[in-house]
Amino acid sequence: MAGKRNDVPPRVRVRRGPKKGRYDRASVDDVLDRGLLAHVAFADGDDAVCIPMLYARVGDRVYIHGSTKSRAVRLLAEGAPACLTVTLVHGLVLARSAFEHSANYDSVMAFGPFARVLDEDERLRAFEAFTEKLLPGRWDEVRQPNAKELKATEILALEIGDASVKVRSGGPDDDESPDAERETWAGVLPIVRSYGTPTPAPGLRPGIELSESVRRLLALRAPPG
Amino acid sequence: MAGKRNDVPPRVRVRRGPKKGRYDRASVDDVLDRGLLAHVAFADGDDAVCIPMLYARVGDRVYIHGSTKSRAVRLLAEGAPACLTVTLVHGLVLARSAFEHSANYDSVMAFGPFARVLDEDERLRAFEAFTEKLLPGRWDEVRQPNAKELKATEILALEIGDASVKVRSGGPDDDESPDAERETWAGVLPIVRSYGTPTPAPGLRPGIELSESVRRLLALRAPPG
Repeated sequence: MAGKRNDVPPRVRVRRGPKKGRYDRASVDDVLDRGLLAHVAFADGDDAVCIPMLYARVGDRVYIHGSTKSRAVRLLAEGAPACLTVTLVHGLVLARSAFEHSANYDSVMAFGPFARVLDEDERLRAFEAFTEKLLPGRWDEVRQPNAKELKATEILALEIGDASVKVRSGGPDDDESPDAERETWAGVLPIVRSYGTPTPAPGLRPGIELSESVRRLLALRAPPG
Repeated sequence: MAGKRNDVPPRVRVRRGPKKGRYDRASVDDVLDRGLLAHVAFADGDDAVCIPMLYARVGDRVYIHGSTKSRAVRLLAEGAPACLTVTLVHGLVLARSAFEHSANYDSVMAFGPFARVLDEDERLRAFEAFTEKLLPGRWDEVRQPNAKELKATEILALEIGDASVKVRSGGPDDDESPDAERETWAGVLPIVRSYGTPTPAPGLRPGIELSESVRRLLALRAPPG
């Protein structure tokens, strides 16, 4: 992947606000690894469709999964043009003018197509990555997929190639404008994510303690985007 | 818009997990109004593209906006097939098996196309809606758009017609399975959003107090999705 703006293919070049664009692989991986949910765009006949999907990155690949009976999964497996986007919103940007109001965010866009993953070991590693992305340490605590579950699940991979990151950060853009003379407070209102109190499953057997993975997460980490 | 599953057009019908689909207008509006960020899918030549956008609903229309110089905005303004999706993630669903791990979420999907908004009064009302969606009460505190800003901004509207909501809620799906006999904690880890401490703009004049709208938001409300 190219690291400079002029080297990057037109479809991934950040055109508006070019200073906000990043094309290096470390920036792409960083946003992918901090996110939780992707939105995946693809064509379905004459329609454009945008669906939310869980995902995980392993090395140069971004994996998604779904039922083998899902229409979206089937279309993506057939190699439909696709774009996976992950956006983390950090704060509300409050300016003195309505026009300069915005949001601070990191967003990564990676172009497909996706391809079916057939190798059984890679499929299992992708399952592990999905589980570990939701909750690090969880894979070793839970029952791993059996043959029936693996058969019912299509796993698709997107090779990270054409990808870009767009970032909006910092305060409002009107600090240097005549609007800064106004009597209006301006700045950023951060949006913060945290975990609430774990809710046991209704069918949880009495006496089972909170998993080590959950306790570690509550002690150490903010939620992914 | 149809309220029953069998009345809804194929492209909006929730096919996987049909119990999770809702098609009534109140459910659609509810998720749109609670969300902050949309992802918009459209075709650009042979590519499918998915971009994050701020948006606001007024009545039967969802508005987005962008620079008149933006390629995405131009394509959408020309009536490209489009899909706007807003997803609110509420929690991590932690099961006893890797297979049943999931996330709880509300997601709304609304199909375009978008159309350019030309009426000056409607354009101003859309601007007001964008500002009020970020921060209720903000519109009356800030300088409203001038002629130059209005000219530089394309406002696009999607008429809410074909739309659906998909919801995943509650605990893991393995309470009734043999896996429930395992010694593994299972349940939901809620994801909670809150606002952090407001950061003044570097150029904020000394002595300007926090706006009433910000104080009210910090006192009363959780952030939008």
